Amino acid sequence: MTENIKKVAVFTSGGDSPGMNAAIRSVVRTCAYKNIECVAIYRGYQGMIDGDFKQMNARSVNNIINKGGTILKSARCEEFRTEKGRKKAYDQLKKEGIDAFVVIGGNGSFAGAVKFNREYDFPVMGIPGTIDNDILGTSFTIGFDTAINTVVDVIDKIRDTASSHNRLFFVEVMGRDVGHIALNAGVGAGAEEILIPEQNLGLERLLDSLKRSKKSGKSSSIVIVAEGDKIGKNVFELKEYVEEHLPIYDVRVSVLGHMQRGGNPTCFDRVLASRMGVRAVEALIEGKSNYMVGIRDNKLVLTPIEEAIKAHTEIDMELLRVSDIMTT
Amino acid sequence: MTENIKKVAVFTSGGDSPGMNAAIRSVVRTCAYKNIECVAIYRGYQGMIDGDFKQMNARSVNNIINKGGTILKSARCEEFRTEKGRKKAYDQLKKEGIDAFVVIGGNGSFAGAVKFNREYDFPVMGIPGTIDNDILGTSFTIGFDTAINTVVDVIDKIRDTASSHNRLFFVEVMGRDVGHIALNAGVGAGAEEILIPEQNLGLERLLDSLKRSKKSGKSSSIVIVAEGDKIGKNVFELKEYVEEHLPIYDVRVSVLGHMQRGGNPTCFDRVLASRMGVRAVEALIEGKSNYMVGIRDNKLVLTPIEEAIKAHTEIDMELLRVSDIMTT
Amino acid sequence: MTENIKKVAVFTSGGDSPGMNAAIRSVVRTCAYKNIECVAIYRGYQGMIDGDFKQMNARSVNNIINKGGTILKSARCEEFRTEKGRKKAYDQLKKEGIDAFVVIGGNGSFAGAVKFNREYDFPVMGIPGTIDNDILGTSFTIGFDTAINTVVDVIDKIRDTASSHNRLFFVEVMGRDVGHIALNAGVGAGAEEILIPEQNLGLERLLDSLKRSKKSGKSSSIVIVAEGDKIGKNVFELKEYVEEHLPIYDVRVSVLGHMQRGGNPTCFDRVLASRMGVRAVEALIEGKSNYMVGIRDNKLVLTPIEEAIKAHTEIDMELLRVSDIMTT
Amino acid sequence: MTENIKKVAVFTSGGDSPGMNAAIRSVVRTCAYKNIECVAIYRGYQGMIDGDFKQMNARSVNNIINKGGTILKSARCEEFRTEKGRKKAYDQLKKEGIDAFVVIGGNGSFAGAVKFNREYDFPVMGIPGTIDNDILGTSFTIGFDTAINTVVDVIDKIRDTASSHNRLFFVEVMGRDVGHIALNAGVGAGAEEILIPEQNLGLERLLDSLKRSKKSGKSSSIVIVAEGDKIGKNVFELKEYVEEHLPIYDVRVSVLGHMQRGGNPTCFDRVLASRMGVRAVEALIEGKSNYMVGIRDNKLVLTPIEEAIKAHTEIDMELLRVSDIMTT
Repeated sequence: MTENIKKVAVFTSGGDSPGMNAAIRSVVRTCAYKNIECVAIYRGYQGMIDGDFKQMNARSVNNIINKGGTILKSARCEEFRTEKGRKKAYDQLKKEGIDAFVVIGGNGSFAGAVKFNREYDFPVMGIPGTIDNDILGTSFTIGFDTAINTVVDVIDKIRDTASSHNRLFFVEVMGRDVGHIALNAGVGAGAEEILIPEQNLGLERLLDSLKRSKKSGKSSSIVIVAEGDKIGKNVFELKEYVEEHLPIYDVRVSVLGHMQRGGNPTCFDRVLASRMGVRAVEALIEGKSNYMVGIRDNKLVLTPIEEAIKAHTEIDMELLRVSDIMTT
Repeated sequence: MTENIKKVAVFTSGGDSPGMNAAIRSVVRTCAYKNIECVAIYRGYQGMIDGDFKQMNARSVNNIINKGGTILKSARCEEFRTEKGRKKAYDQLKKEGIDAFVVIGGNGSFAGAVKFNREYDFPVMGIPGTIDNDILGTSFTIGFDTAINTVVDVIDKIRDTASSHNRLFFVEVMGRDVGHIALNAGVGAGAEEILIPEQNLGLERLLDSLKRSKKSGKSSSIVIVAEGDKIGKNVFELKEYVEEHLPIYDVRVSVLGHMQRGGNPTCFDRVLASRMGVRAVEALIEGKSNYMVGIRDNKLVLTPIEEAIKAHTEIDMELLRVSDIMTT
Repeated sequence: MTENIKKVAVFTSGGDSPGMNAAIRSVVRTCAYKNIECVAIYRGYQGMIDGDFKQMNARSVNNIINKGGTILKSARCEEFRTEKGRKKAYDQLKKEGIDAFVVIGGNGSFAGAVKFNREYDFPVMGIPGTIDNDILGTSFTIGFDTAINTVVDVIDKIRDTASSHNRLFFVEVMGRDVGHIALNAGVGAGAEEILIPEQNLGLERLLDSLKRSKKSGKSSSIVIVAEGDKIGKNVFELKEYVEEHLPIYDVRVSVLGHMQRGGNPTCFDRVLASRMGVRAVEALIEGKSNYMVGIRDNKLVLTPIEEAIKAHTEIDMELLRVSDIMTT
Repeated sequence: MTENIKKVAVFTSGGDSPGMNAAIRSVVRTCAYKNIECVAIYRGYQGMIDGDFKQMNARSVNNIINKGGTILKSARCEEFRTEKGRKKAYDQLKKEGIDAFVVIGGNGSFAGAVKFNREYDFPVMGIPGTIDNDILGTSFTIGFDTAINTVVDVIDKIRDTASSHNRLFFVEVMGRDVGHIALNAGVGAGAEEILIPEQNLGLERLLDSLKRSKKSGKSSSIVIVAEGDKIGKNVFELKEYVEEHLPIYDVRVSVLGHMQRGGNPTCFDRVLASRMGVRAVEALIEGKSNYMVGIRDNKLVLTPIEEAIKAHTEIDMELLRVSDIMTT
């Protein structure tokens, strides 16, 4: 236990995700509980550079646990990628008397923290907040569970109208590099096919599968397509391709887009965020730095941030197999 | 009261809408209550031509009141537009001993019923089922209330992420000819601007409004755009235009699409559908034909179908004004 | 048009209802639009007596349209029932320079406003905010639509487990004096029976209906009971009675309680509240006083508050009949 | 891999939970995929005794993944507790040519399976379906995630009205023996106190905490109480106690009851159920018997059923601590 940490800053960075507010609340209240000062930084690294700070207490975070988005705003910040920008940020933190910070965000945000820590030996702690669930060192990131439920809710609605008209829908979901949302929401929504960045099943297989689905008497077909699907066609191109090669379907397209980032967080994300916030502050108090808080087998674990951002988490091959069997 | 109606057919036609199942259930149960036979026709007019019929009883419609889509499927049918097609349909109805039908659908479906009624003097009754709320003779169509709630829920989610990043969103909602969904959901979601087919506010006004909104300190802006907005640009073109002429915003686009047709119906739509189904069957029993059941001032009223399909309902000018004031 | 109204106060009073925030927002923004000052009063009449005021501008009501409850809090206030209390309230309003107020609430709150207006000739305007939908002069009160959807959502859930176990549920919903929630939500949820304060169907009929329902092959039965049901038994007593007289059912009870007052308002309630807020402020500006804003046949209308509070709205007999037919 | 398993039965037993249908679907489709026959048994062990069987194929389970409850019904069965009852059940299974069964349920249902397996050496496999999350050998049971989200949604609504009136609510949630729902939903909903069966904090501490909460300026307080809370008072008694000893609060009570068992399953529960169903059938094919499928660290694992039902899972002490810190 060090006596060095008397004032902790917290901020959100990069794309927002549901549950970020619950994480902010947890960091703020844990500081209050531990009699440490807490300062919020608005607009991520940009606000750090601009000195956009606000003193927080336990009451500052009332009634935010159930809100989507982030009350601290988020932003991408080019200036922080420069040495000069980081110097400004450091000076602002010092001026304010801040001893450490907790960054809530994804890979890009963590990379900035690592660099900053290296240059200024400044204590930093990461909390994984992103809907993509693509960060090594944790089974779940904050926001993923909410996002897959949002996608499943929408596809349940699309299924209503698809079944009523015997239609085929291509539904694009988020995931440029990883297919976790597509795979989980696809299995949850009972999708007929799931196209992800990690695997190229080929167009032939897609056509075969759609033919089989039609023949088996299904009243509708829904194909989930991750943004970065490896088949190399977006949903509009897929529509055209199928209309040309398999004219038995009335094909429609839906791009879910940014709604996937919003919405009230699920209980899972709120609890996860609450737990991670506590651990982040406690780890700083214990004198630890440069770690990310993760969860594994329902236990909180610390992973060196450098490790966490080395690669994306891999797709669950067993779940891919389940997905295949379910579309029998 | 006539003794002529002993067997009534019911079907859904055209685009599906939430609450159609509640209307089907109501027609079926009212027939059972009145000791009249009820036959369901699958896939609208196409199923009528194909003789795709099913005998229904009160239990056939258990547990469907809360389901989106239509258990009877829907389809557009070119063949019914021909004399020959309608002749086939008539023969099928006669063969089955059907004395009258209730059609649940929109303008196009009603037009078919009118023609059929004229040619064969066959008793028909219409129930307005469409999310567009564009049918004369009724303040509300079945599905409209659910659709505007779906849109508002999605925009609430988009608002979360828009506020977190100080973004401007163009959100496209359904409505090729009428702006009822856009206007109501726009007011409900607190949209900064609403572009509808009925009114061309001009691009200048849009830019002015967005400038004012930014200046007034709003953390995000959401512009609802009906598919058929009169400004003549779709959401992608609007994005480009604003990026060029007002580069103070980070602009995003979202096209809501078919999810607006699905989802569990709201209580309002379920009650409306239940009431209309009863009235439709009772009107047929009373010997009436060629009417549409509507609701006005919370009372059920009958309008000649010909009247109902003459034009679209007009936009509510008072609500347009409210929308303007709310974006102060 | 009078020049007298330069500063308007707004507050919520009595039981809260979803959409009150949308109404507050509308009053505040309409004032801003009309260049009138607007003051919020916290905790209803109690806050008026205590001078718990806050100056509002258009930005004060950002991001509240979609929130349940009331940001201005609500309270019942004994002191305002006394002459002395009302004198204090008047003095506070005068001190603050307030020329008129808009009260958002139900019958009790309106009665206070009427008395106050009579004693001090102070301009008042009412907006009906209550989930009970029991106020004369308006087809809908703010919050009713949200409440019936909340009830229907819960009963949909209860139906899942009821069907899985062939159970009978008695579900108590709000409504001491009026059965609007019970009747509408009951029809919307497909309830087998609906017990309301307006009508005593008798226990015999209930038993008969339950027997018939069982015999007809239904897998579950749900009976909606308004708090003030005329049959004179609460849900627990009904359970005992049925277990004794009709032991073919496994009977359960659920009391929905206060959750019916909360939740994000539906689009309908948000739009209704937005419209009523505009009309309330405009009516005050026009020199009108002592009216309640209502909606009839989708048009805003003004009713003298004295008229509005004379009696409860009557139950819709046609909907009662629909309810009967639907349980065939 | 044995050649013995050619026909597998599946059924649900005990209290229903959301996601059971997804598990049924998974078992049925995995059998289809593996070219094994699949038979559904209605009403659990009672249906087994009565021979209430139905042949299933991949299409029999269309459109059920998103439905709450169980399409196979569930029931408690006294007869199966007798030797004679189990003999009847065995004879029915043999007559139908069934080689193994998959039981979806909780502790009680598993105990029956263990006994049956011992007596007849009949291959059985368990899938944990219960909202209580109290079964050893798995981090999550099917239905738990949905239940905690249902509770959190309701408490979010109650919070709206509680904050509007500065009220204290005691909310009773399910959990006679274990506090998992109370603890997780309590943290997720930001409850001020959480009373569970595993720990008696004492009434003094509750009063102190409520006093502190009031003093700290919170506008409402919500206390979650598990049915079997160790403090020994139910929510109505707690209300009385607090009203007597701490008259600064306006206290209300809400008993959530059976709605906690229903509702559309979350994506998490659908995916979990899909995975477990596959593993259950595959384990039977591999010649395994008398196991329960569980999930640990996101991997499927098999635990001998005897182990699984030995005790309840323990409460997460770290989460209890988080709960404490969050109420600062």
